[in-house]
Amino acid sequence: MSKGLLIVFTGNGKGKTTAALGMAMRTAGHGLKVCFIQFIKGGWHYGEIDAVKRFEGLIDFHVMGKGFTWKSDNIEEDARLAREAWDFARRMIASGVYHTVVLDEFTYLLHYQMLACEPCLEFLNGRPAGQHVVVTGRYAPEQLLATADLVTEMQVIKHPLESGIKAQKGIEF
Amino acid sequence: MSKGLLIVFTGNGKGKTTAALGMAMRTAGHGLKVCFIQFIKGGWHYGEIDAVKRFEGLIDFHVMGKGFTWKSDNIEEDARLAREAWDFARRMIASGVYHTVVLDEFTYLLHYQMLACEPCLEFLNGRPAGQHVVVTGRYAPEQLLATADLVTEMQVIKHPLESGIKAQKGIEF
Repeated sequence: MSKGLLIVFTGNGKGKTTAALGMAMRTAGHGLKVCFIQFIKGGWHYGEIDAVKRFEGLIDFHVMGKGFTWKSDNIEEDARLAREAWDFARRMIASGVYHTVVLDEFTYLLHYQMLACEPCLEFLNGRPAGQHVVVTGRYAPEQLLATADLVTEMQVIKHPLESGIKAQKGIEF
Repeated sequence: MSKGLLIVFTGNGKGKTTAALGMAMRTAGHGLKVCFIQFIKGGWHYGEIDAVKRFEGLIDFHVMGKGFTWKSDNIEEDARLAREAWDFARRMIASGVYHTVVLDEFTYLLHYQMLACEPCLEFLNGRPAGQHVVVTGRYAPEQLLATADLVTEMQVIKHPLESGIKAQKGIEF
């Protein structure tokens, strides 16, 4: 039995986006195409961008919301941007162009109810049969975990910020 | 405060090596050098190898033991190979050449007592001040977690092999 998987990396620990990035590059290493959609962080840092550029033609990456942090005071505007971003993601998933589509930090849109969970899950469940989808982010809703094929929870056991060590280039970003 | 971090990705879930791979490529994306040493898996698959080749001159990768799985019947031979691999890793860490040295699946050598834990930790604690080291693998010993700066436990919540889905190219390897 072989099928497109719905993979979720969640939890409060470091390594969710990083693991998705590693998967994307490994997949591209097989010559398979990846669409990496970042929903939240307001743009990648130089390290990630330079890294994916080395896979031009294999990894397409898109930052949604143009630096939007989903924390504005304008809830209607937030919801509109969330819908637009999700519409784009759906087109990519339905396109059949990609081996894997990564929805990075997508869980926040569900958690903060900027998108209704049920229709999103319906769409994901009805995606093309071979289509792999990777979802990352904290607070993955139970319904998403229930429908996923593979779930890893990244749990923080220890974090350097607790010891007063600043975020560092090449480590945190 | 800024210092070289000892980072551990452990736990039984998917994403430990993958996160280390993502970190390595992001670091290389900054133009910083990475040494990626794989202690166990018996050689990478094509996807990983092709991916790191795109970072030639920035990511050096080494497979220890030439496909050795650390499961032979010859315990003395295993211990000898483990010591050789660790000697090599120590040279890389001490060399000052790399921003980050990744010891992939290194925890097994400690867990299965092919190396004594205390001198290993002493060496890691005494490494050059700015040297980042990433250790991955299940069964990370408590002493390693105690001395690490950042620990994430990747917990398996759900795994497709449980549902009878085979490992697939671009996903599992």
